[in-house]
Amino acid sequence: MRRIGICDTTFARYDMASAAIDELKMHAPDLKIIRRTVPGVKDLPVACKKLIEEEGCEIVMAFGMPGPDEKDKVCAHEASTGLIQAQLMTNTHIIEVFVHEDEESNPKDLKILAENRAREHAQNVIKMLFKPEKLTREAGMGMREGKPDVGPL
Amino acid sequence: MRRIGICDTTFARYDMASAAIDELKMHAPDLKIIRRTVPGVKDLPVACKKLIEEEGCEIVMAFGMPGPDEKDKVCAHEASTGLIQAQLMTNTHIIEVFVHEDEESNPKDLKILAENRAREHAQNVIKMLFKPEKLTREAGMGMREGKPDVGPL
Amino acid sequence: MRRIGICDTTFARYDMASAAIDELKMHAPDLKIIRRTVPGVKDLPVACKKLIEEEGCEIVMAFGMPGPDEKDKVCAHEASTGLIQAQLMTNTHIIEVFVHEDEESNPKDLKILAENRAREHAQNVIKMLFKPEKLTREAGMGMREGKPDVGPL
Amino acid sequence: MRRIGICDTTFARYDMASAAIDELKMHAPDLKIIRRTVPGVKDLPVACKKLIEEEGCEIVMAFGMPGPDEKDKVCAHEASTGLIQAQLMTNTHIIEVFVHEDEESNPKDLKILAENRAREHAQNVIKMLFKPEKLTREAGMGMREGKPDVGPL
Amino acid sequence: MRRIGICDTTFARYDMASAAIDELKMHAPDLKIIRRTVPGVKDLPVACKKLIEEEGCEIVMAFGMPGPDEKDKVCAHEASTGLIQAQLMTNTHIIEVFVHEDEESNPKDLKILAENRAREHAQNVIKMLFKPEKLTREAGMGMREGKPDVGPL
Repeated sequence: MRRIGICDTTFARYDMASAAIDELKMHAPDLKIIRRTVPGVKDLPVACKKLIEEEGCEIVMAFGMPGPDEKDKVCAHEASTGLIQAQLMTNTHIIEVFVHEDEESNPKDLKILAENRAREHAQNVIKMLFKPEKLTREAGMGMREGKPDVGPL
Repeated sequence: MRRIGICDTTFARYDMASAAIDELKMHAPDLKIIRRTVPGVKDLPVACKKLIEEEGCEIVMAFGMPGPDEKDKVCAHEASTGLIQAQLMTNTHIIEVFVHEDEESNPKDLKILAENRAREHAQNVIKMLFKPEKLTREAGMGMREGKPDVGPL
Repeated sequence: MRRIGICDTTFARYDMASAAIDELKMHAPDLKIIRRTVPGVKDLPVACKKLIEEEGCEIVMAFGMPGPDEKDKVCAHEASTGLIQAQLMTNTHIIEVFVHEDEESNPKDLKILAENRAREHAQNVIKMLFKPEKLTREAGMGMREGKPDVGPL
Repeated sequence: MRRIGICDTTFARYDMASAAIDELKMHAPDLKIIRRTVPGVKDLPVACKKLIEEEGCEIVMAFGMPGPDEKDKVCAHEASTGLIQAQLMTNTHIIEVFVHEDEESNPKDLKILAENRAREHAQNVIKMLFKPEKLTREAGMGMREGKPDVGPL
Repeated sequence: MRRIGICDTTFARYDMASAAIDELKMHAPDLKIIRRTVPGVKDLPVACKKLIEEEGCEIVMAFGMPGPDEKDKVCAHEASTGLIQAQLMTNTHIIEVFVHEDEESNPKDLKILAENRAREHAQNVIKMLFKPEKLTREAGMGMREGKPDVGPL
C-alpha cells in the first residue's frame, strides 16, 4: 500500500488537510494516509522529512496558512525554503499547499480558496503518483490551484 | 528519562526559558531539562543542534527576542533559517519561540506576551511528545501562541 | 547516448520545454531527452535532482514562468535557491530558464520572449556539452538569452 | 592548550581582531590563538570552517564591518547565513562580531563601538568556554555587546 | 604545479577573467589556470565546485556582472549564497568578483572598475596562496578592490 504523508498546522484557519485527504481517497481509496499536525509553518519541514524517512511516505503534502503581516510573509519564506531543502535531502516531492490570509479579502472566499486549493493539489499528487504524463500534457497551460486557471498565453 | 533541550539568549529582555521550564515541569515532572544560554539568536541554531546531537535531547525549544530595527529582523530571519536547517540535519523538532520587540508597544504587554508565548509553546511541546493526536484535533483552528486564538474561518 | 533532463511546470503559460527540446534535437539528434512536468517552480529543484540521480541525466534544463506579484517573486527566489543547491549536491549543471510574466507588457511579446529564451538556453546547453570553449570565446560579451544581446562595454 | 580561531577582513576599517585577542589573553593567557585574514565578510564562512576542521579550533570569532549601502547589507546577510551553516556543519560555535558602518554617524563613535563590541564578545567566548552557567545567569537580561545594555523588561 | 580555477559568464559585459589571469601570471608564472565560462552568475556555484572537485583547483575566482534591475540583484544574491555554500562543501576559497552594472553611471568608468577589481582580487588570491600574513597586516585597513581604499577609521 502506497504511503502518503499529510502535514498541517494548528495556526491555519481552515482544515485543508481533511479536504485533501477526502480528495485523495476519492481518487485512490487504497492509499495509506499518515497525518501529522504541528504548531506553525516553520515546523513543517522537519515534520515532512520525518514522514518520508521514518514513516516511509513516498510523497507528502504540506499545508499552511500564513498570516497577512510582513513577519508572517518571512515565516512562510523560511518554511518554503526548508520544504525545498527537505525534498532535496530525501529525493522526494513535498507538495506545498499554502494559502496566504491576504489572498482574499473576505473569510468566505478565503475558505473556498483553501478548500479548492487543497483538493486541486491533491489531484496533482494523484497525477504525480499514477499518471505523470497527464501533467506533461498540461505543461505551460497556466494552471492555478484553487483559482480559475489563467490558461496559456 | 526523556531529555528536553532549552536554549535562550542574553540579548532577550525576558527570561522566557524559565517560564517554559516551569510549564514543562508542571505537565511532565519527569522530564530531564538541559539548558544552554548563548549571546544572541544567531547563536541558537548550533547550540540547539549540539543539545540534540551531544546531549541526546529529543526536542528543543529555542527562545529569542529580536529587536525592532531592520537589522534585527534580518538577524531573526537568519536564525530561523538556521533553526530549520538544524532540524532537517537531525530529524528533530526545534520549537522556535521568538517574540519581536515591536509586537507590543509597551513593555508590560510585551512581558505578558513573552511569558504566555513561552508557556503555550511549552504546552505544544508536551502535546508533541505525549499526545500528538491532540494537535491534529486543533488543526486549522487558528491557534495563536501568547495571543488570543483567532479561530477557524 | 547522452541523457538530458527537461523539467517544466503546469503553472507556466507557455510550453518552453517543447521549444527547447526542438532546438536540442536540431543540434544534436542523438540526445536522449527525459521530461518531467510538475505543478510549480518550487517543485522543480527535487524533480531536477531526481532526473540527475535517478535517471542519469548529465545536465538538466528547468523551465518556469513566475507570476507578476510579490508572492510570485518570492516563489521564484526560493526555486532558484533550491536549483543552485541541487546542482551543488550533484555536481551537475541545471540551466534555469525562467521568464517573469512582467518582463513584457503584452502577451504576444511575452510568448516570443519565452520561445526565444528557451531556444537560446538550449543552445547554451549544446555548447556546455559539446563545445565549452565556445562559451569562453563569448565570455564578457553581454549575451542576453531571449532578448537582444547588450554587448561588451 | 585550547585553540581559538580568529578571522577578520581587510575590508573592515578597524582592527577588531586585535582588540579581541588582547581581551582573550587577559582572561585566559594560555589560549592558543590562530588568526586568518580574508578580503571581505563573504570569505569568512569557509575561513572559519577551515580554522575548525583544519586547525582544530574549538570556537571561532568572525569579525566584519559591512558598509552602509544596500549592497553591503546583502553581503552581510549572505555572510551571516554562511557562518550559521558553517557552525551547523561542524557543531562548533562561531561568534559573529559585525559592526555596521551606519551604526554610528561619526567615525570616532564607530571606532569605540567596534573596540567595545570586539572585547565584549571576547568575554562571551571566555564564558562559553569556561563558565557557561554565567551566561544562563544573564539570560533574558537585555545584554548588548558594544553598547549600553538595555536590561530586562 | 598549483591549480587555480577561473570561472566567468557570457552575461558579463567585460572580460574580467582575462585581466585576472594576466595579473596572476605576472605574480606567479607557474600557476596552472583552468578556466570555465557559463551563461550567468547562477551557473557559477556548481561550475566552481566542479573546478575544485573534478579539476583539483585549490582556489577559484568567480566573476560576474549583475545587471541593474531588482531581478538582477536577486540573481546575484542567489549566486553569492551558492558560492558560499560551495566553499563550505569543499573547504576551499572561492573569491567572488562581482561588479554591479549600477556601480558606475558611465560605461567607461564601469570598465575601469571591472578591470581593476579583477586585478586587485587576483592580488588577493596571490596573497592567500603565498603570503597570507600580508593580509593580516592589512586587517581592518578599509581596503576596497577596484576603488580607492577608504582606509582605517
